[in-house]
This record gives sequence, C-alpha cells and structure tokens, in this order.
Amino acid sequence: MNYKNFPMVPRVIFGRDSFSQLNDIIAPKRLNIKAPFIYLIDDVFKNNTWLISRIHLSYDDKIIYISANEEPKTSQVDALVEDIILKTKERPSGIIGIGGGTLLDLAKAVSIMLTNQGETKDYQGWDLVKNPAIYHVGVPTISGTGAEVSRTTVLTGPEKKLGINSDYTPFDQVILDPELTKSTPKNQWFYTGMDCYIHCIESLNGTYLNAFSQSYGEKAFDLCKEVFLENNSSEKDLQDKLMMASWHGGMSIAYSQVGVAHAMSYGLSYLLGTKHGIGNCIVFNHLEEFYPEGVKLFKEMVSKHNIEIPQGICTNLSDNEFDVLIKISLSLEPLWENALGKNWKTIATPKKLKELYKKM
Amino acid sequence: MNYKNFPMVPRVIFGRDSFSQLNDIIAPKRLNIKAPFIYLIDDVFKNNTWLISRIHLSYDDKIIYISANEEPKTSQVDALVEDIILKTKERPSGIIGIGGGTLLDLAKAVSIMLTNQGETKDYQGWDLVKNPAIYHVGVPTISGTGAEVSRTTVLTGPEKKLGINSDYTPFDQVILDPELTKSTPKNQWFYTGMDCYIHCIESLNGTYLNAFSQSYGEKAFDLCKEVFLENNSSEKDLQDKLMMASWHGGMSIAYSQVGVAHAMSYGLSYLLGTKHGIGNCIVFNHLEEFYPEGVKLFKEMVSKHNIEIPQGICTNLSDNEFDVLIKISLSLEPLWENALGKNWKTIATPKKLKELYKKM
Repeated sequence: MNYKNFPMVPRVIFGRDSFSQLNDIIAPKRLNIKAPFIYLIDDVFKNNTWLISRIHLSYDDKIIYISANEEPKTSQVDALVEDIILKTKERPSGIIGIGGGTLLDLAKAVSIMLTNQGETKDYQGWDLVKNPAIYHVGVPTISGTGAEVSRTTVLTGPEKKLGINSDYTPFDQVILDPELTKSTPKNQWFYTGMDCYIHCIESLNGTYLNAFSQSYGEKAFDLCKEVFLENNSSEKDLQDKLMMASWHGGMSIAYSQVGVAHAMSYGLSYLLGTKHGIGNCIVFNHLEEFYPEGVKLFKEMVSKHNIEIPQGICTNLSDNEFDVLIKISLSLEPLWENALGKNWKTIATPKKLKELYKKM
Repeated sequence: MNYKNFPMVPRVIFGRDSFSQLNDIIAPKRLNIKAPFIYLIDDVFKNNTWLISRIHLSYDDKIIYISANEEPKTSQVDALVEDIILKTKERPSGIIGIGGGTLLDLAKAVSIMLTNQGETKDYQGWDLVKNPAIYHVGVPTISGTGAEVSRTTVLTGPEKKLGINSDYTPFDQVILDPELTKSTPKNQWFYTGMDCYIHCIESLNGTYLNAFSQSYGEKAFDLCKEVFLENNSSEKDLQDKLMMASWHGGMSIAYSQVGVAHAMSYGLSYLLGTKHGIGNCIVFNHLEEFYPEGVKLFKEMVSKHNIEIPQGICTNLSDNEFDVLIKISLSLEPLWENALGKNWKTIATPKKLKELYKKM
C-alpha cells in the first residue's frame, strides 16, 4: 500500500472582509517591478467597486475579466497564457483568481502553464506536471466546488473533460471571505452548494474512503444539511457555513474520489457545455439506485428552495451523441471504481448509462 | 479587523503503515551528505524494532532518544541544539520528531532554534521567531494534543510555561499513521485524548470562535464522543478516529484559543511538573461553572473508562506556591479573554483561582 502525500494549501485566511488584506498578503511575493500580479476575475464583478476598489494595482499589474458562463477550457488557458507572456516584461509574480470554480480553476491552470511547456491538454490527467507553478492565490466568491482547496483544475479539452491533478495545482494562498458570496444568484448558490453536497455523498459512499476523508466529508455533509435544510442560521452564518462546507468537502476528496454523478455530469459538460453544478444536479436527481439516502435528502433540498432542475436535456440527442456522453463518462475510471468497486464495469455498462441519460 | 493568515501543514500523509513511506518522503529534502537528518524519538521506542527498523539511517543521520516523562523545557531545547551543532558537520537537512506532544514540540523547537540565535526562552510568546526553521517532520504516536498541526510548541521556561507561537513553528510534513498509536498505555491514551476533547470544549465555548474554527472543533468533538462514549467502532477505527480528532482539534485553535482548563493546567505544569494531559483532566474536573455540559460529558467518559483522576495534588502547597500557580495561570491573558470575554479579570480573580486550585 502506498499512500498519497497530500499537499494542503499552506496559507489560509478566513473572515468577513479578510479580502481587504489581499494587498498586504501578496506584497512580499512581488519578485520585482517588471513581474506583475495578474488578476483573473469573474466579469460579473466588472463594475462592482465594492470588490474591485479593494485591489491595489501597482507597476504592470493587470486585471483580466473573464466570463464564467462557460466551463473553463484547455484552449482558453493556452490563450490566456500566451496573452500574459506577450504582454508582460517578465514572468508574473503571481496569479490571483477571484470568482467561482471556473475562475479558480483557470487561475490554477494558468499558473501551471506559465512554467510548463506545451499545451494545457497534455497535462490533463494525474501527476503529469513537471515544474512548480508560479505563486497563485484563490479567492472564492461562490461556495461549493471545493476548487479553493483541491489538487485539481478541471478543464474541458478537445478530447476530454478532465482535471490537471498534481501536487503543484493547489493554491499557495487562499482567502476565505464569506461576505464575497453575498450576491450569488439563488440558482447558482443552490447548484454550486449541491456540488459540495454531492461530493460528500460520493466520497462518503465510495470504496476509496478512509478516516481522513471521512472526517472531512462528514463535516461538510453536516454543514450542507444545516445550510440547505435547517432554519436556524442568519444570512451571514449561512454564508460562513457554506464556505466551510466547500472547504471541508474539497478536503474530503484528498483520499477519496467523486463518483457516479460527477462521472456522468462530465459527459454532459463535454457534449452540451452544461455547467458543472447544474449538471451534477441534473444527474444526481436520477441516481436513487446508487445513492438512495443522498438522493432523498437532495430532493428535500430542491423542494425546500423551490429549485427547478432542468428536465429533458437529452431528449433530442442522436445515438452518436449518446455514444459520446457514454464514452466520456466511462473514461473516468477512478470515479467509477470509487463508486462501485473493482468490478464497476459489470454495473456501469454503456446500456445502463444510456438508460440513465435518457431520463435526464 | 485584521485576521491571521494561518499557516497550514503543507504536506500530510494519512494511513495505516504510512510511516513506512518516511524514508521516501524525506529523501529529496537531504541537502548533502554532510547535512544529516536528526530523529528525536520517544525513548519508549528504543528497543521497538517494529518501529525503529523502518528508519533507514544514511551518512551522518542520527537518532536521539528522549524521555517524555517530563514536560519539554526551553533548557532542554538549548542543550539539544548545542549538541546537534557540535556533532554535525553542517546544519542538518531536517529534524524528525516521533512521539507524543512532548517529542513533537521538541522537534518543532529544535528546528526553530537551529536557525535563530540566542536562547529558546527568548522566543516564548507570539511571533518572535525571525528566521524560517529547518525542514521538520512530525510523526505522532499518541493522539490528542494537536501538536502535529498547531502553530505553537509549548515549553516550560525559567519564568513561564508558554508556546513559541509563530508561522515557522508548524511542521513541513506530517505523517499520520494511526497504527503507531496501538501500544499507548490506557491512562495516557485517555489523558491525551482528553486534551483534544478539552481543546474542543474551550474553543467552541470561547469568545474568539468563528465559523472556521467552529467547524473543525465540532468535528473533533463529534469524533471524541464516538471514541470515548460510543461502542460501535473497532480498535483500528478508534485509533483512526482519535488521530483525526487530534488533527481537527488542533486546527480548531487556528482562529480560537484554549481556555480556563489550559490556563490553570499550565500553572500545575510549571510548579509541579504535572504532565499536560493529566493536568488538564485534573483541572477540568472542577470547572462545571465554566463548562457545565462539557464537564458533565467528561465525567461520563472518566467513569466509562474507569480512569482515576488524581485528587489532592494541591493539598500541601504553601501560600507562596499558590501565588506562583495563580501568577503563571493569570499571565496567559489570551486564554482567559477567550474563555470569559474582555472583562475576564473581574471573574478570574486570584481569590477565585485559589479556591479552584485548593479543590484539586
């Protein structure tokens, strides 16, 4: 047995308005005046002075606003890296990602690709990154994905949707300021929160689980229940708790894996561009046979918050398209093995997956 | 408001027999053949081939066996550092601490004092360390203190028992192998486990608490209840869970503090040399008025495991000795403020403390 030596985020700050400490935190990391800090920020914040005015740009520092309407792509990372290399005098001092999972994953990937040659798609997989990334900071503004703490950055490439899983992927610094999540639209709050909840269900019911991951998964699960099912927290407490749920949920994947919902949802993202959070919800809604208790509780949460999970997104797909969905999904072998054990191929057959996708 | 930018242990490995990976993990950290790894190991393992044979000494690597019968002292750290400097050709590549809280704290302190001038006692306090410590690895063999994850190393000095709290204190690497705890004597298992439980009670009932620390503290608390009050785990599961409880309990102190039990127990350690775990139990046993629910549950645990908490250790103390106890205890201002709020001095009076100590 060989255990993974898990890299943790070495610095974390938590607190309402802790974002205001960003400038002080990164200042000592400036290499020189020609090596700027590059901010990748969700473009919903473009005119949000409450947030943007707290960023102090110096020398050649630059903000790049990016839409999170689509899932992050390997080609998008390549373009960003090329643009940064062309427009900066020296390799940047650091990359700061501010936004939800999309922006955080882009920040991680860009920081890796600034020091690793070739195309981003070549690094999708496990432990393919050769050189340490440049200093990178994550500032989540939506809670749930766990991207702020995880060892991966999930990207859609020309051939697959798969993470760059490596010891160099995790952020060097994370700023957990729950106040930044206050204006998340309700649907997005729910879908992204459910990403955390589904992580927990998949991790806690997986065959890879050990006591380390279990303890984090259980805490995240408890916090999700507090946030989405109970009624005894203030708005601020709910923001605080969901941010911690996301953190612990991400940690729970350390010695575990996600499962059926993520494997099938990746297919939807790849083929239809379905966003990750909503995609997980669409899939999980039909997974009673794999996660009976988890799906039951999920349906209570959906109902309590009057969320409508989209239906019929696969209705008009061709057989070829179903084949793509199934191929992408089944390629995620560790996820299936975690969910169903060594003999997962006898259960997760193409026929079975087609049946499930047809319901969605 | 200015929040602490908390340093986390950047690398952690968890698993039964993960200790066997120690050599592979530290090998890339060897600076050169003249810069040895120094192992500080609890002397109870001296003839334990099951553990020691898994350590591969190369070049000038050396094991120093240390008794944990007494609480670690600043003078002991000074002597160890002097001995290491005299006997090694170059500054060591790393310090590996293997044992309970005493050995872990010594390893942290030695690694700091190898790069910082002067005497260890000069660094007792908050953020007094100037230079980064050398690479240091923690391998707990008893669960509970949280020393493997905390930002402090608690030492008894000539004038006080106080931690070296700094960003350079945490380990660079921790190996969590629950199997190493299998031969902990029952009393020590209980007392050290209660250190974790008492951490949680003090943290969760403190005024410093935020959602970050709360989530870790709650998880550690739940795990302590599973370990010490419930009957549905195997021996191995109990070891795994208590190791995670210790980890989360240590993390819960990040944005919090311990409280009355620790403040008063430090007095006992300073004056009478009482070991930390048992000292906490002796004190906590009499703190119903501060922690009514926590003490009630503690007494259930004591009873369930047939533990005898020592009584009467202060019976024969002189007035001068009581004054020392009280002075040491009241000097730990952040602990009292966390426990009782800004106006703690009106509650924790010398008279009140004397009354409490007299019961112990």
